[in-house]
Amino acid sequence: MSTESKVTAEKPRGFIDKLGDEAGAEERIVTAVGRVYEKWGFDRLETPAIEYTGALGKFLPDTDRPNEGVFSFQDDERWLSLRYDLTAPLARFAAENKDTLPKPFRRWQTGPVWRNEKPGPGRFRQFVQCDADTVGSDNPAADAEIIAMAGEALEAIGVSRDGYLFKINSRRILNGVLLGIGAADEKARLTVMRAIDKLDRIGVEGVAALLGKGRKDESGDFTAGANLDPASVKKVIDFVTLETESRAAVLSGLERIVGDNDEGKAGLKELAGIDAVLSALGVDDARARIDPSVVRGLEYYTGAVYEAELTATVQDEGGRLVRFGSVGGGGRYDDLIARFTGERVPATGFSIGVSRLIAAQKALGLDSAFRADPLVIVLAMDREQMGDYFAIASELRAGGVRAEVYLGGAGMKAQLKYADKRAARIAVIQGGDELAKGTVTLKDLRLGAEIASKLGEDREAYAKAREQVQREAPRAEVVAAVQQMLAR
Amino acid sequence: MSTESKVTAEKPRGFIDKLGDEAGAEERIVTAVGRVYEKWGFDRLETPAIEYTGALGKFLPDTDRPNEGVFSFQDDERWLSLRYDLTAPLARFAAENKDTLPKPFRRWQTGPVWRNEKPGPGRFRQFVQCDADTVGSDNPAADAEIIAMAGEALEAIGVSRDGYLFKINSRRILNGVLLGIGAADEKARLTVMRAIDKLDRIGVEGVAALLGKGRKDESGDFTAGANLDPASVKKVIDFVTLETESRAAVLSGLERIVGDNDEGKAGLKELAGIDAVLSALGVDDARARIDPSVVRGLEYYTGAVYEAELTATVQDEGGRLVRFGSVGGGGRYDDLIARFTGERVPATGFSIGVSRLIAAQKALGLDSAFRADPLVIVLAMDREQMGDYFAIASELRAGGVRAEVYLGGAGMKAQLKYADKRAARIAVIQGGDELAKGTVTLKDLRLGAEIASKLGEDREAYAKAREQVQREAPRAEVVAAVQQMLAR
Repeated sequence: MSTESKVTAEKPRGFIDKLGDEAGAEERIVTAVGRVYEKWGFDRLETPAIEYTGALGKFLPDTDRPNEGVFSFQDDERWLSLRYDLTAPLARFAAENKDTLPKPFRRWQTGPVWRNEKPGPGRFRQFVQCDADTVGSDNPAADAEIIAMAGEALEAIGVSRDGYLFKINSRRILNGVLLGIGAADEKARLTVMRAIDKLDRIGVEGVAALLGKGRKDESGDFTAGANLDPASVKKVIDFVTLETESRAAVLSGLERIVGDNDEGKAGLKELAGIDAVLSALGVDDARARIDPSVVRGLEYYTGAVYEAELTATVQDEGGRLVRFGSVGGGGRYDDLIARFTGERVPATGFSIGVSRLIAAQKALGLDSAFRADPLVIVLAMDREQMGDYFAIASELRAGGVRAEVYLGGAGMKAQLKYADKRAARIAVIQGGDELAKGTVTLKDLRLGAEIASKLGEDREAYAKAREQVQREAPRAEVVAAVQQMLAR
Repeated sequence: MSTESKVTAEKPRGFIDKLGDEAGAEERIVTAVGRVYEKWGFDRLETPAIEYTGALGKFLPDTDRPNEGVFSFQDDERWLSLRYDLTAPLARFAAENKDTLPKPFRRWQTGPVWRNEKPGPGRFRQFVQCDADTVGSDNPAADAEIIAMAGEALEAIGVSRDGYLFKINSRRILNGVLLGIGAADEKARLTVMRAIDKLDRIGVEGVAALLGKGRKDESGDFTAGANLDPASVKKVIDFVTLETESRAAVLSGLERIVGDNDEGKAGLKELAGIDAVLSALGVDDARARIDPSVVRGLEYYTGAVYEAELTATVQDEGGRLVRFGSVGGGGRYDDLIARFTGERVPATGFSIGVSRLIAAQKALGLDSAFRADPLVIVLAMDREQMGDYFAIASELRAGGVRAEVYLGGAGMKAQLKYADKRAARIAVIQGGDELAKGTVTLKDLRLGAEIASKLGEDREAYAKAREQVQREAPRAEVVAAVQQMLAR
């Protein structure tokens, strides 16, 4: 084959391959999460990757232009697109099957979604989402059960009960506050929401500036403000800085602030309903708080919003200890299905950030149960003896051990290098000597590597450990000997 | 919202939604299969759905035109496509990472693939594949281990050890036979392979006709033949009709037929090597046979080919009992990776037909372990008591029972209809009476449906069963009472 005709082996930018534990991690997380969701009565749904472009709509969050950021192609006369989330396909499915689905309809779903964005560091054009949604119930109990269930899912993947916190709010309360100060038009609402969303980063002073005349940041850049009068600024600040330690206390604080406003009162009733069911489900203030500063960006939510964060601290890039932070969020979106049916259908849902959770598992050391079992490699010392090598591997697997036979044609040294690349724990060697004696040699590759790295440190300890690296066992006892070596 | 602006809720043709057990079945099958593959040392790989069109190549089986049948779209200057199988992306991945991957490299992979074909009954444009491949080993042991492993995977999803059969052949043997009779050019080879592939359907006479002058079928249509002379036809027929009960017997039969031909001898050595390792792995003639009539269509195989079939009989559409048949296949393809690297890299792999296996599980009643647990629904009799309903559901889940609370606003009758749509087994009812007494009523919905269908048959039995449909239990004992009802 000439060099000219060769094809370059590369994948498009913004896409990645995953191998081994990295590939398994995603599946194991969503399987564990899905098992919890199913126990709560959420049915698994799978929809195709491809939908009519028109059915996906213009709901891609934080994007102004419709269908910007979507992979699309023409099929006969009509445009098709790869889904960019799992909510738009759910809306299509619920509308298409509205006459036959149980009402309310609960479903969970996982799978890849695609964004046709300029790729950059850490920005991928394909990633996995994992969602749970309830369609057709306006009962705040629907929000509460999703919050409690998502908490149970976090525990199922190894997060401790005191290791996560849900923050809950309602857009309707903020709407009520804004109505009360006469800043209820869409543009003012967005400016205020953007300002509140920055509370964690720029503090109360910064948010107050952005609610008023505007704010100059450290670099000297000026951001225009919402131009609220000082009394209104104070009202919004009072609202977003309510003490959040106890749900009951926040609720009475909000009652004071909301006053007689209908929209605000509706939001308050929503939060009180969520609080009651959370308490019935045993989810206390330590796991779920009402926090008026939560706005969940600019997404399509119409009522309750909620987000989950991990409270454990990890080191950031600068070495500072910071909270791990958000691993998922959701809320009420009562308008999505109306696009198809013309009728408003109340719905609420939660989306787990699967790649965030994988990062959290690694950072917090929660991934041990999610890693593959240790691997044993049977070396191929003599091509004529392949049958017995396979018999050894077969016996090991029957004994619960992950095991493979080296299949290449290389010598002993290359085979040990192969075992190293495969991160194998043990090599099983049956050369001519062992065959004659009816034995096998087991080599503890992890211990071997440890010793090699300690070479020259403590002679006596080195010599002792060296002895443990290799042992001979009767062929008939290979499984027990391997199990013993793995257990130490 | 006006009717004009509504979007039609529909998915593109050739795509399907799956809900509940149907959606779960696919994931549960590939999880069970993957667990076996990992135990054999196959690492999980995930590659993106989207590849450069050029990297996918022209290997779509049974399609003459390149990239026909592929979903493609332009990105900047270059064409991207959705993958149509998992083998082409593996070839790209293995070539891209050839300097760092262990050699040989074993991987398994599952995920959706897409075909841009005219949709029709039973023809889908998205479906799931599940593959295992070994790259970089020309050892027949690599084929043998994949066959044995795939057998173990079939057992892991419920097929009994005597319920499946692998049929193995080598393209090189057929090539040798054709060389021996002077019919080795590509066109003759394809015509002969097509004829052999029809053995099951048209019998020995039919194949003999297609190898010779041609064949007129029942409808009178004439298919041109390969125009072999009668002696050559006999040689091919002798070859494909060898008695296959014993691998050893086929091997000696093939030795006779192949004679001195180098290509045929190479194929024979390949099959003998596979036989030896299968025997070492305990896979006997009852589970894996050498069958010279297996050609595996027109795909890109270069050596060993193998396919798995389920031997149990099922009724076909006409009510006749037929073998369930093929659930997967694979073989050696030594040319795929050379497209990228310029060097031939030996490779072999097996692909499970996931949707075929789901159909088999249903037809053979193997899917009970793959269905969701029975569901219990706590009815919402009084909106003020939602908290206690959620507490009941929560206690049930803690007791291992799948349970949910009805979240809608409808009355008792509609709630029972909802429970019916959800295929729930038990309804837990706590109305005003029960609340006052500190009890709950449990209704066995399955038994209730059975009784309703037997209404008027046997009065006494009916009355007795009727009693069992409903029972009252103390609120504190709801979990034990539900578990008891589920167990009967």
